[in-house]
Amino acid sequence: MRPYELTLAAAATEIQERRLSPVELVDSVLERIDQVDPRVDAYVTVAAEQARRAAREAAQEIARGRRLGPLHGIPAGLKDLIDVAGTPTSASAQVRNGHRAAADSTVAARLRAAGAVLVGKTHTHEFAYGLIAPQTSNAWDGGRVAGGSSGGSAVAVAAGAATFALGTDTGGSIRVPAALNGVVGLKPTYGLVSRHGITSLSWSLDHVGPITRTVEDAALVLAAVAGHDPHAPSSLDAPAVGHRPEAEPDLTDVRVGVPSNHYFDHVGPEVATAVHHAIAQLEALGARLVEIGIPMTRYFQATQWGLMVPEATAYHERTLRTVPELYQADVRILLEAGELMSAGDHLRAQRARTLTRGAWARLLEEVDVIAAPTVLTAVPAAQETVTWPDGTTENVSDAYVRLSSPANITGVPALSLPVGHDTAGMPIGMQLLGRPFGERTLLRVGHAFERTHPARALAPAA
Amino acid sequence: MRPYELTLAAAATEIQERRLSPVELVDSVLERIDQVDPRVDAYVTVAAEQARRAAREAAQEIARGRRLGPLHGIPAGLKDLIDVAGTPTSASAQVRNGHRAAADSTVAARLRAAGAVLVGKTHTHEFAYGLIAPQTSNAWDGGRVAGGSSGGSAVAVAAGAATFALGTDTGGSIRVPAALNGVVGLKPTYGLVSRHGITSLSWSLDHVGPITRTVEDAALVLAAVAGHDPHAPSSLDAPAVGHRPEAEPDLTDVRVGVPSNHYFDHVGPEVATAVHHAIAQLEALGARLVEIGIPMTRYFQATQWGLMVPEATAYHERTLRTVPELYQADVRILLEAGELMSAGDHLRAQRARTLTRGAWARLLEEVDVIAAPTVLTAVPAAQETVTWPDGTTENVSDAYVRLSSPANITGVPALSLPVGHDTAGMPIGMQLLGRPFGERTLLRVGHAFERTHPARALAPAA
Repeated sequence: MRPYELTLAAAATEIQERRLSPVELVDSVLERIDQVDPRVDAYVTVAAEQARRAAREAAQEIARGRRLGPLHGIPAGLKDLIDVAGTPTSASAQVRNGHRAAADSTVAARLRAAGAVLVGKTHTHEFAYGLIAPQTSNAWDGGRVAGGSSGGSAVAVAAGAATFALGTDTGGSIRVPAALNGVVGLKPTYGLVSRHGITSLSWSLDHVGPITRTVEDAALVLAAVAGHDPHAPSSLDAPAVGHRPEAEPDLTDVRVGVPSNHYFDHVGPEVATAVHHAIAQLEALGARLVEIGIPMTRYFQATQWGLMVPEATAYHERTLRTVPELYQADVRILLEAGELMSAGDHLRAQRARTLTRGAWARLLEEVDVIAAPTVLTAVPAAQETVTWPDGTTENVSDAYVRLSSPANITGVPALSLPVGHDTAGMPIGMQLLGRPFGERTLLRVGHAFERTHPARALAPAA
Repeated sequence: MRPYELTLAAAATEIQERRLSPVELVDSVLERIDQVDPRVDAYVTVAAEQARRAAREAAQEIARGRRLGPLHGIPAGLKDLIDVAGTPTSASAQVRNGHRAAADSTVAARLRAAGAVLVGKTHTHEFAYGLIAPQTSNAWDGGRVAGGSSGGSAVAVAAGAATFALGTDTGGSIRVPAALNGVVGLKPTYGLVSRHGITSLSWSLDHVGPITRTVEDAALVLAAVAGHDPHAPSSLDAPAVGHRPEAEPDLTDVRVGVPSNHYFDHVGPEVATAVHHAIAQLEALGARLVEIGIPMTRYFQATQWGLMVPEATAYHERTLRTVPELYQADVRILLEAGELMSAGDHLRAQRARTLTRGAWARLLEEVDVIAAPTVLTAVPAAQETVTWPDGTTENVSDAYVRLSSPANITGVPALSLPVGHDTAGMPIGMQLLGRPFGERTLLRVGHAFERTHPARALAPAA
């Protein structure tokens, strides 16, 4: 196995036991980037020289017995909304031409402090305002969408072009591309991971979190980046997250909620089958399945848009007036539409969120996790609409948001993990949703599932 | 001294020691209402028969040794936004014709549980959307405004027509009429007292609290109504409030912030002198005075209006379309203006509030309380504008809001207490502002001041 193929946990063990040097690992990942990125276009910029230097420093520190922990010497990609001091944060947007971040975002600083090696910045939909990453190709089939907006991060991890990555998620943008590329994506609880130094799409819905090849890896990254940040107004002073999964999966104390509405409505049959199969696997591990009704479903879409649209417009207010021509048309139209929204509509969305949070809190007293599809079809081609067997059609973005936005509205944590492939060989994802600050339970359940499945090969990235 | 003249604390002692019966007290207050209310018009409705019945029951219970506490048998007026089961909540509005509350508000239920006798519902500005109570006359001079919107409650307490009352405060509506009528008004910390069952003006700024003749009385009422309410989304699970003031005032550990900006800008000279005199009195009691700068002052007015206007409109959305002619013109225009406000403006107000709260939290680490005028002139006649010595003029409502709204925006507690009279004999109020859930400190400082001043006579209500 070549170094770029290793999971984070495996690479960390190799490094700890001195069988692998960070220099070899980073060189291997940089070579893999050279090999695959011309095809998948996951990266906006690759900082090869800085990464090699950081790898050498890590190697020296580790040789001196000063290993900082599991992330020390591990190469990572950051979605290009996340500030790294002295480098541009492009947000995949022309408006950002000439930008240069003055300081590290909190997550970048925490990754550095944990010894991670930042190899580059990954593509997003312009300013993350969309559920695709138009530049980037799916790691499993270059003719299909990568998903987004953290598409670059998911594809990089899936293709071996980063050992792990960070993405952001406002309506599903970590989980959707993770599912579509067969990797793991964790949207943490709102407030658990600081967004200080990260370009905002919609600050009351934005989250930052890991994209990794395994649930275990997601736990390792989360532990490094989570925790209170006095610079971030939304950051909460949550208990420390020690998310080390157990060796022997036993879920006998876990109640898994299986939705009887919403999450399996208008879902592709192969997706539904794969997710139900995975849920049966959780039951075989001891979990008790509980049929649940999802409350407030008819408000999800209006609430998500009613919050996101004016918040996004507020962020872009100035440049939208001075340089509107620098925005892509799809984003510019959404931003301009936000200027027409009334305070009353915004208040209704805020009130619907409050009611939804309350209803979900009561639901999450009855079960420990909710298991559901992450995305409702296996990976679509780059098409605009999905046609369902009953003849109805659905916009692809709306279809994505339908299953992912409830976790953004409520702020509950959601972990997407791969649970199979469709007949075309494209990956299928399941998401586990839990209580606020219940990441430990999600990771435990996800890891238990993962241990019953053999390690997967990297995506072909062809 | 006739029973209606007694403070709550004094009446409670008389009742406890069986020198006064609740029946005598309630009869005395009802007679006083008959005598003065035709002149001051504090009450919308007086429930004389129910009050007499409740007084008899209280007398019987107390005779049986089952006294519930200091409020048992004490007559109270409730601002007519506060639901009492089976009776109309008029909000002093035609729109509410035919209304009847199905259940008690949480505060009404808690007062009943404490044994208080509800004698009637007091006037407000229509739906509390204004800083006067147009029907009601000042208790000290019938030619002057009562202040509002809890004008009925303040005048009733000042005139002996209730031993205590409850009001609500969205931009000063407890403190302004308390100051203008020479009584005590406490706007508690946002979330400390439940607003369940109270007509909303602007739910993120609304508060309910006591209006009393003394600070000690305010503490007794607050203890009865404060505390978590699962029915009220904004209710916080705060520590219990045991606010009994000490017998021997000593403020040597208290730092009193004296604002060098905003609170004494454009303030009438007699008000400034009276408040500075009261602050000197706090220093004489041992307090350390600290000059402070008030942050974020230029945003107060825009923030208050930017939050209140769309929230008020959202509450009235339906009736504003179906029966606009039932609203008074001033209120209807404000409500209609709210329909034109943009989501972006509302977001800016919300963000300004967040920044203001942060800046005030840092300020309130430096001092324990802030002392300031409650209202910037002694009681004005029913005029529309104030003319300042430098030739500038200010709308009366804006002038009221200027000093009172910061406590609504930040949610910090604010206690207004009388500190003197102007040359025309009209009362002047000082407000003490404190940390969130710092009511104990406010009441302690206020009570210490109060003990150095002899008990005041009731307002003439003539």
